[in-house]
Amino acid sequence: MILLRKFVTPEEAEETIQKNFRAIPVGVEVVSTDDAYGRVLAEDIVSKLDVPPFDRSKVDGYAVKSLDTFRADELNPITLKILGHVSAGEVSYLKVKRGWTVELATGAPLPEGSDAVVVLEDAHREDDKVKIFRSAAPGENVLKKGFDIKRGELVLRKFQQITVRELGVIAAIGLTKVKVFKQPRVAVISTGNELIEPGKPLPQAKIYDINRSTLTASISECGCIPVIFGIMKDNLREIKRSLEKALTTTDFVITSGSTSAGVEDVVPKILNELGKPGVVVGGLSTKPGKPTTIAVLNGKMAVALPGHPSSALIVFDLLVSPILRKMGGLTPETHGITVSAKAATRIFPAKGRRTYAPVRLVKDSFGELVAYSIPAESGAITTLAKADGFIEIPETREFIEKGEKVEVHLLGQKPS
Amino acid sequence: MILLRKFVTPEEAEETIQKNFRAIPVGVEVVSTDDAYGRVLAEDIVSKLDVPPFDRSKVDGYAVKSLDTFRADELNPITLKILGHVSAGEVSYLKVKRGWTVELATGAPLPEGSDAVVVLEDAHREDDKVKIFRSAAPGENVLKKGFDIKRGELVLRKFQQITVRELGVIAAIGLTKVKVFKQPRVAVISTGNELIEPGKPLPQAKIYDINRSTLTASISECGCIPVIFGIMKDNLREIKRSLEKALTTTDFVITSGSTSAGVEDVVPKILNELGKPGVVVGGLSTKPGKPTTIAVLNGKMAVALPGHPSSALIVFDLLVSPILRKMGGLTPETHGITVSAKAATRIFPAKGRRTYAPVRLVKDSFGELVAYSIPAESGAITTLAKADGFIEIPETREFIEKGEKVEVHLLGQKPS
Repeated sequence: MILLRKFVTPEEAEETIQKNFRAIPVGVEVVSTDDAYGRVLAEDIVSKLDVPPFDRSKVDGYAVKSLDTFRADELNPITLKILGHVSAGEVSYLKVKRGWTVELATGAPLPEGSDAVVVLEDAHREDDKVKIFRSAAPGENVLKKGFDIKRGELVLRKFQQITVRELGVIAAIGLTKVKVFKQPRVAVISTGNELIEPGKPLPQAKIYDINRSTLTASISECGCIPVIFGIMKDNLREIKRSLEKALTTTDFVITSGSTSAGVEDVVPKILNELGKPGVVVGGLSTKPGKPTTIAVLNGKMAVALPGHPSSALIVFDLLVSPILRKMGGLTPETHGITVSAKAATRIFPAKGRRTYAPVRLVKDSFGELVAYSIPAESGAITTLAKADGFIEIPETREFIEKGEKVEVHLLGQKPS
Repeated sequence: MILLRKFVTPEEAEETIQKNFRAIPVGVEVVSTDDAYGRVLAEDIVSKLDVPPFDRSKVDGYAVKSLDTFRADELNPITLKILGHVSAGEVSYLKVKRGWTVELATGAPLPEGSDAVVVLEDAHREDDKVKIFRSAAPGENVLKKGFDIKRGELVLRKFQQITVRELGVIAAIGLTKVKVFKQPRVAVISTGNELIEPGKPLPQAKIYDINRSTLTASISECGCIPVIFGIMKDNLREIKRSLEKALTTTDFVITSGSTSAGVEDVVPKILNELGKPGVVVGGLSTKPGKPTTIAVLNGKMAVALPGHPSSALIVFDLLVSPILRKMGGLTPETHGITVSAKAATRIFPAKGRRTYAPVRLVKDSFGELVAYSIPAESGAITTLAKADGFIEIPETREFIEKGEKVEVHLLGQKPS
């Protein structure tokens, strides 16, 4: 339990979290492949069948004994008798003997006795006979049974995320259900007497709650399920009741607002009463993010983000998102996209604090990206909406020089 | 109507499509902001209010007349009488006159008569008086009414996609509903007598239908709603009936399979009978993708993709995805991510055809990315599942040289 505020770097905060909290999947469940997109496998998947399950023609053509076609060429075609035709999907009991052939559609199973297929273009049919103008090597134009996937082969691994390609593999081996990690349920609590839900009339001295919308969407982007607890007044009993309910009914708790040192900022106080070890990070030496409070309460984690929407989002990206991703079985990296740009002006950090400065990107006349700093007015709500990304300025730097190369972490690249 | 197959480049195909088909949004609808993530605005959004709606304190501190604090410093503090306290969200009728102050919480509205806030750290309270140790400039620590967003300001534009940041802006101005473009409904039809739905037992000569899963997920990734028509046998009447139903009940039709020149390949034939102008692209001079058939039928578009799952996906990415995105109001670019790599070996294209070669990326001992070509066996189903991306080899190149720099289009970067 931390009584006095101590401001730590994000790295120190991560280390403290790791010591006190195990970010591991919250469970497994079986889902239909129709609902599996984006989910994370909680099992290795081994194929129970060969794909393809039989030798299959890759082309429209003639199934032959390759031996029959040796020395066949444009000038010396060989002639085979046609026994019949097999379509894709058709079960056939035709057998190819020396001197005979069977006409095949692409995808049709190779008839017994044949070991190669001659494409239509290299053959000329006349009634029930066909002239073959090219020799075929054994296996030519044949997709061998199990070429793609062998029975017993490990095709997908536990912790692999299911994208379009994994869905293809799962369908190929005939599965309709897969075991995946459960999506962590994450409580979203906004606090502040000044907050009103969008849609309601705005009384004097009030503002609309933004964090509910932005945090909810961000939680979904991490593969978790947001559980909205709404707006809590800055009232000890009300916030405590909500937090207790959130801690017992969800896997992770996120609050925003009521974290600074003012009279009404009760969230850190209450968090310390709700379990052990209590508050483990009392503040960050970053700008924005200073009032961020992190508690571990009897094995569950609760993060109190700053009330300011842009600050809340940056801290969420930095510290919360990697943990939520791990709890859903994903890799902690967000695959955040960064681009290089030149600083348009000197950019000053907050003194002695790691600074995340929002920037707008513009292409100069040489086509090079230039990053313009957006003044992050501490109250401004739409800063991030106007930014293309942000740059990290180490606490050791006095400023970023004009023209200096910076790495810009792009924002809002998720849907497209 | 094209009777003979003519193979065109992707650029020629695009041009032909543009001449015959207008890829425009299919409609608009009003959705709740809770369901708006990822959707595309069909209206400009103008704020009906100032954000913040009143002058607001950025800090915990004392509301003052800045005039009163002139020349105040550490050695010569000025003393003000405390009139009261205002919390965030609290309506107050307190007025600050010369010599007086009001204690404010962060977010509280500035009391009438005050024009600046002195932070707690620069003040020392004694009972109902406070000593101020620093002068405050007018407007200091005040977030002015409308600083963030002005009433009447255009905050979001038509065709803007709604990400976390846009949700924040929409919440800030109190909206709970927005007008967005309808998501196009896209029919997915698999054809082929050899296909069986995953989950069912696999009879002899049959294989599981993969395209239904992969195309359905790919359609969702483009912001459209897949409508599954299932597997059609290679039967003229059945396919025709399905296509007719798909054309009347959905916005776009995608089939896969039954497009090559074989006896059972009936889709192009039927497409030509279902509307005007009929088939406009009869094939692509690409590998994979050769049998791709594109029809425009009385204002609707139908694309017959190759049956081979990897080929179908590459053609989908190349030609279909940009059109579906536009029909949903998105930019046609998929923001596809490319990375530079060195070719690990010579990579040969198909002769005279634009080739999309799947590659696997490996880091060499210098940390540089190296692209290994994956032999794209024309029947192989899992090629793409094993690939990290693909490279485009122009039809004019004989081969890509070993060590040559190539741009790799990454695959499956969507969820993360």
